[in-house]
Amino acid sequence: MVANGEQSSTLHALIRRFRDALAPDAVITDPQQLRTYECDGLANHRVVPAVVVLPEDAEQVRSVVRACAEYGIPFVARGSGTGLSGGALPHADGVLVVTSRMRRILEVDIANERAVVEPGVINLDVTRAATPYGYYFAPDPSSQQVCSVGGNVAENSGGAHCLKYGFTANHILAMEVVTPDGELVELGGRAPDAPGYDLLGAFIGSEGTLGVATRITVRLLRSPESVRTLLAGFPSTDEAGAAVSAIIADGVTPAAIEMMDALSIEAAEQAVHCGYPEGAGAVLVVELDGPAAEVDHTFAEVQRHCGEHGAFEVRVAADEAERALIWKGRKSAFAAVGRISRDYIVQDGVIPRTALPEVLARISALSAESGVRVANVFHAGDGNLHPLVLFDGDHPGAAERAEEVSGAILDLCLEHGGSITGEHGVGADKVRYMGRMFTSDDLDTMQRVRCSFDPENRCNPGKVFPTPRLCGEAPGPRRGVHPLTEAGLADQF
Amino acid sequence: MVANGEQSSTLHALIRRFRDALAPDAVITDPQQLRTYECDGLANHRVVPAVVVLPEDAEQVRSVVRACAEYGIPFVARGSGTGLSGGALPHADGVLVVTSRMRRILEVDIANERAVVEPGVINLDVTRAATPYGYYFAPDPSSQQVCSVGGNVAENSGGAHCLKYGFTANHILAMEVVTPDGELVELGGRAPDAPGYDLLGAFIGSEGTLGVATRITVRLLRSPESVRTLLAGFPSTDEAGAAVSAIIADGVTPAAIEMMDALSIEAAEQAVHCGYPEGAGAVLVVELDGPAAEVDHTFAEVQRHCGEHGAFEVRVAADEAERALIWKGRKSAFAAVGRISRDYIVQDGVIPRTALPEVLARISALSAESGVRVANVFHAGDGNLHPLVLFDGDHPGAAERAEEVSGAILDLCLEHGGSITGEHGVGADKVRYMGRMFTSDDLDTMQRVRCSFDPENRCNPGKVFPTPRLCGEAPGPRRGVHPLTEAGLADQF
Repeated sequence: MVANGEQSSTLHALIRRFRDALAPDAVITDPQQLRTYECDGLANHRVVPAVVVLPEDAEQVRSVVRACAEYGIPFVARGSGTGLSGGALPHADGVLVVTSRMRRILEVDIANERAVVEPGVINLDVTRAATPYGYYFAPDPSSQQVCSVGGNVAENSGGAHCLKYGFTANHILAMEVVTPDGELVELGGRAPDAPGYDLLGAFIGSEGTLGVATRITVRLLRSPESVRTLLAGFPSTDEAGAAVSAIIADGVTPAAIEMMDALSIEAAEQAVHCGYPEGAGAVLVVELDGPAAEVDHTFAEVQRHCGEHGAFEVRVAADEAERALIWKGRKSAFAAVGRISRDYIVQDGVIPRTALPEVLARISALSAESGVRVANVFHAGDGNLHPLVLFDGDHPGAAERAEEVSGAILDLCLEHGGSITGEHGVGADKVRYMGRMFTSDDLDTMQRVRCSFDPENRCNPGKVFPTPRLCGEAPGPRRGVHPLTEAGLADQF
Repeated sequence: MVANGEQSSTLHALIRRFRDALAPDAVITDPQQLRTYECDGLANHRVVPAVVVLPEDAEQVRSVVRACAEYGIPFVARGSGTGLSGGALPHADGVLVVTSRMRRILEVDIANERAVVEPGVINLDVTRAATPYGYYFAPDPSSQQVCSVGGNVAENSGGAHCLKYGFTANHILAMEVVTPDGELVELGGRAPDAPGYDLLGAFIGSEGTLGVATRITVRLLRSPESVRTLLAGFPSTDEAGAAVSAIIADGVTPAAIEMMDALSIEAAEQAVHCGYPEGAGAVLVVELDGPAAEVDHTFAEVQRHCGEHGAFEVRVAADEAERALIWKGRKSAFAAVGRISRDYIVQDGVIPRTALPEVLARISALSAESGVRVANVFHAGDGNLHPLVLFDGDHPGAAERAEEVSGAILDLCLEHGGSITGEHGVGADKVRYMGRMFTSDDLDTMQRVRCSFDPENRCNPGKVFPTPRLCGEAPGPRRGVHPLTEAGLADQF
């Protein structure tokens, strides 16, 4: 396959620009190497990018983004590639900007309780750098050992502890960002409540559609004096859900309150032998943290609520090892489902906490009607569901039925005033659901912001929003996007 | 004075549109009545609006905003008019949209810990509605008995307790907004971390430049089980500042930690006889709240830190009456300064908390050099300073010198990585300082968002941003803004 002349020459010029600006091994054009980047954690969407670049600092990111602007080429930023919605899915004719060489922790400022990091820094490394001072970085997605802070910012990542501590957005104080036209701007600042628009908030969770963060100032929290964890076994999710409601209604905000149903318990047991209570229709993992005086007091309350709402066994972690064992079952749940089903979809939806019992009953009914098994694992405190929809890809039509059930669960979430995604993002995966959640006026309003930053739709195009309608009205001449094919690259370089 | 023909006819048509859409007494054109609205809390800026409208619901707001769009007329939204930066200063040729008839509390949903209110609802009324259920609305600006929730949203208002609980932005879950072209859109939602851009965050604190909120969903917090308050007298602000640092460094987050210096203590004493410790060079008011078990424990720590850092008297409120007396001195401080100075400027700046001792020393030096007295009252925990710059307007040049010192204090804040406003906003007052805090690229980035919502610059024009540079490049034909003069109105209606 040979690319046409225009493609080749555009591509040639762009790559030359990259090679001038970056280290010799930081511009990847070899098809085999490019294939490494064809997907993120959503493995059923795959696209090989035209070029991959590995910039080392903000100036290099700027050079790349400016060259893309000049030649009208789309680009996608990628951190560790652990996202579950295809937010870092490459563009076939575009550049993938990978931040894995931007891993410096630039400052740990304990007096002001913050750290300044590059976007490729691994989430858990921030906590490691702060631990000697008695501090930590709160957002804790399950992938925290490998995911990047830049990726957390793009997806506004959550985690088991965001019930009490909030999402990534609650822990970012400022950012330096390269906009799609290559400007370097500061969002947020060291002082609280900066004047002007809070574009920091709009940028966090924008899934890479407004630019590339090159420096991130994160909030550090003091490590809690005391952490206490319990595991409670219930006859069914009804009783467990009632216990959650009672705990929250009592004014307790646990650091985490997680629920697993019988099917997900079975999977975790098979995978990691976590020894969860036998015969449980549901378990709750409840963790409290804070000053010892407070934790001891409220922990007793939580035990009482579990007992009063039908827990037949409440196991309290006596030490860190027992705590780790309790969490092991919960944290392995997604992967463990592979033990009981060849294939499965990890869904991510949100409902108001008070709608839990009804929505769980409806999911159960959906499962019974369709014959598709659904395992439920979720952050019960804030109503963030992670139903795992099981199927066997070898059975004709099974994948489609699973997809239908998975979509119907999102409709259930919307019907109850919830959301189509809690913490995994829209990415490439859920673009088709955005029109169900938002009116076209709502979407147009977001689109105005996108178009004001990226009128040519070159910054992570095709993600988050359905096909833009407003950018055609955007100012300035619309430059053509030159398709760069993989074949063209292979031929030329 | 007679307006020219075009002005008269535009005006005539616009007012007719308003009278068709609103209640008969909801369109004000009488010059005497219009004068009531000529300023907000920043009384040295005064502009009489061309028309005032008092809509009763979102549809009426929409009618007004659409008519303004059609005739190319600017408009300004106003809540209770208590703002201190002139954010609700009218436009002489424009419409003032006053929300005082939109005061319904539409829903108090305790199970989901939220309430839905109209924008004109008084801040304290939200707490009053939630109190019977053991809940309250956290943002507590000093004006909370009269200021509106819509105004709190526009200015992202703070208050003494935002050290622990955050600004208004942390307590708004969703909003219905009329955009400058009259669309009705939903921002945010009932579920956490909604997909798409977080425009809720960008809207909060945008000082009325992106549209008019017509319905606001606020977060309700459970009233704390225990509240404990102390007043500590120190020889000077140095010792008081060291005590603040020690408390925070110990991992304590007080609900509030306020400092007043000798001059502001003197003023408060004269005004309300609050009985603060005699001879104090500084006092701290420290309040803790939360579960009794935690508060009792940490309150003892706070007392110890005060003692160790030179407090010569620590007074603990034994009951609600004593607590009220402690707060009375602090809350009256701004007004009380009128007892010791004919005129004064209430400044509002922010510095990182760790820079407190140096900045206070520099303010003191500035005061000594210029001969201008400065009283300091501030939220010490988060570095939000409220220096009161005293002068006598009868002395020639005194106002100018005070203005210079006041501006120099903002420069000090910026020099230390802080901000030109903590909680009072930019409004009309601090537009001239924005270029000192932000680069032109930073301002252009915000301007892009403004222009994407309001390309004709009709929505609270002249506030927050220096003269726009980008809107000229915005899409679509630029309609002319027809000046409506007050005289024109008086002649015609």
